[in-house]
Amino acid sequence: MTVRNPKPVRYELIRQDRGARLGRVSTPHGVFDTPAFMPVGTQGSIKGVLPDQVEKTGTQIVLANTYHLMLRPGEKSVEALGGLHRFMGWSGPILTDSGGYQVFSLADLNEISDAGVKFKSHIDGSEVFLDARRSIAVQNDLGADIIMAFDECPPAAASPEAHKRAVMRTLRWGEQCLAAHGRPAEQGLFGIVQGGVDLKLRHECARKLSAMDFAGYAIGGLAVGEGFEGMKSVLDEIGPALPADKPRYLMGVGFPRDIVAAVAAGVDMFDCVLPTRNGRNAYAFTATGPLRLRNSAFQRDSSPIEAGCDCYACRNFTRGAIRHFFFAGEMLGPVLVSVHNIRFYQRLMADIRRRIGEGSFDSFVRSDARCQLGPSADGELGLL
Amino acid sequence: MTVRNPKPVRYELIRQDRGARLGRVSTPHGVFDTPAFMPVGTQGSIKGVLPDQVEKTGTQIVLANTYHLMLRPGEKSVEALGGLHRFMGWSGPILTDSGGYQVFSLADLNEISDAGVKFKSHIDGSEVFLDARRSIAVQNDLGADIIMAFDECPPAAASPEAHKRAVMRTLRWGEQCLAAHGRPAEQGLFGIVQGGVDLKLRHECARKLSAMDFAGYAIGGLAVGEGFEGMKSVLDEIGPALPADKPRYLMGVGFPRDIVAAVAAGVDMFDCVLPTRNGRNAYAFTATGPLRLRNSAFQRDSSPIEAGCDCYACRNFTRGAIRHFFFAGEMLGPVLVSVHNIRFYQRLMADIRRRIGEGSFDSFVRSDARCQLGPSADGELGLL
Repeated sequence: MTVRNPKPVRYELIRQDRGARLGRVSTPHGVFDTPAFMPVGTQGSIKGVLPDQVEKTGTQIVLANTYHLMLRPGEKSVEALGGLHRFMGWSGPILTDSGGYQVFSLADLNEISDAGVKFKSHIDGSEVFLDARRSIAVQNDLGADIIMAFDECPPAAASPEAHKRAVMRTLRWGEQCLAAHGRPAEQGLFGIVQGGVDLKLRHECARKLSAMDFAGYAIGGLAVGEGFEGMKSVLDEIGPALPADKPRYLMGVGFPRDIVAAVAAGVDMFDCVLPTRNGRNAYAFTATGPLRLRNSAFQRDSSPIEAGCDCYACRNFTRGAIRHFFFAGEMLGPVLVSVHNIRFYQRLMADIRRRIGEGSFDSFVRSDARCQLGPSADGELGLL
Repeated sequence: MTVRNPKPVRYELIRQDRGARLGRVSTPHGVFDTPAFMPVGTQGSIKGVLPDQVEKTGTQIVLANTYHLMLRPGEKSVEALGGLHRFMGWSGPILTDSGGYQVFSLADLNEISDAGVKFKSHIDGSEVFLDARRSIAVQNDLGADIIMAFDECPPAAASPEAHKRAVMRTLRWGEQCLAAHGRPAEQGLFGIVQGGVDLKLRHECARKLSAMDFAGYAIGGLAVGEGFEGMKSVLDEIGPALPADKPRYLMGVGFPRDIVAAVAAGVDMFDCVLPTRNGRNAYAFTATGPLRLRNSAFQRDSSPIEAGCDCYACRNFTRGAIRHFFFAGEMLGPVLVSVHNIRFYQRLMADIRRRIGEGSFDSFVRSDARCQLGPSADGELGLL
């Protein structure tokens, strides 16, 4: 007798290679392979890139920001326009964050309390209140496949007391989110582990969240100033401690170096604005290090951004032409480098998955130059 | 015994329906069906639209501007980067204009003489000289399939003497262009008929150019302030007077109303920035008139830009979402409306070709609402 599984988001582990996991996640809008990278469509669009091009990069799931969409055009408008998939022109899986991170990092905060957060909209200055119930209600209206619990994300340098209070709030708000979730058969709700670099606090948060019935678990509050070693210490401890039968998501990370470290610790999902933000600034990822395509050295360079890359930009355009588009103010410059950078990330993820499947992820991390890409001393992208 | 035809650009008339011509033009980079509409890639890019999307609109040939490309990045850079096709990522036919029109309309002119034009670059203020030889040399380096003779294009309101002098110069420069053409086996050179709305002058210019061996003939100096009736009087006279065995091209035109009037007079080729320029301003073409997509009426409008349209934007996005992209400053807004508008033009051209083929072009012009689209009283697009 088969029992129908009513859960909208399900994780299947295909193979484990030490800590690294090859798997897949099924959602109401299709399956994605893990470890997975999600390009960011902040306001409902991967900046400049049409969804058919996003798909051709190998992208299977995209992220959109609740904070931005609730302020403009408003979740009720998105719902009236057919929901987030129709709104974005993307028929595959979508994840929305809770809005918490943007409120804490972008908004003009008026008041944080156990109840929630009052802030001023960055668009029109109007006062907005966000709490667990409201975040979930907005995300229910938007209609992504995976939605995130409302959490408090303090900076790495916050006091131990601030981190402890953030964990307490995150746990309480997590319970409230589960209770408020109005579409549990259609959207999987993930909990978020906070706690800074305090491993005891992280463990406590992870253990208590694991006891609640979330569809997946995220590690939040990393890549906020703690440094690579700090991040790695948390990942190595907390990654394996999260429920093995559910997807694990490291939020807002990051450089290839960070991603492979997290994959080694058993993390399955990633999102980051780096490929598109760098792309808009003419900053291209390659296995041998970053290219600044505005550099005059590329003026008559007829090679593609990266030799051997199969992306639309590399198959069809020279470095010199792309450089020209940036200087001429043509949208195609940012579009082409964004396409390349997303494809760079998706090729990396595909290779990570293949090597886990072959049981050789460890040697991949040691030997593939891309795994060394991280921030150089000046904080910019570099080969470490 | 077959004789190899060394001409790079050849016209084939398939069917004539009164004055309207169904045909095709073959070039070294492929064939395009006529009447044809060419989207404009001023600086080497159809603004915001990747070539694969341009192709999906039904576009078979695109135009690029010699004036812009010679100033930036410079024709030698384009040549070093593999030529214009590689530069633009477009493997189909390309036409470049002579630079004359932009010099006369955009540049800070220092001196016009029989020899040529001295002007200041709009980019860095440096002094540049352009004449017939230089225009052809630049176009030879760029490497388009169809290149244009250097002409003088006065405003409609110029004096009869100015128009006469422009025709004399255009004829002399035309001869110089033919003599200077360095790649006659690879690029077809078109002559340009000037003469304002003076039919006698136009006829003289057309007759003398026809006696020279151009690969095709353009009508220039229209849509520069003479009004629709003035334009039509020139088209009806000069269209049929041009060599029947070569393609005829009305430069820089225009509204659907203008295009069908020109097709009726036997014109085969068109280019215009309207679809992309309007697209970037959230201004969409539809058969029932224009839509200003920033209008608040569209905030929760879940219909496509135009019902029944098969373009990427209409198949995947709602009016409300596109409106949001404009307000949010997302590139996808301009991109999507540009894609729709180009597809609108290409569907119109495909229907024009079909109706000529069926021998019913005349009834098409009388019955199809799109043929009424032209500038309304305020100069904006409207249904007349």
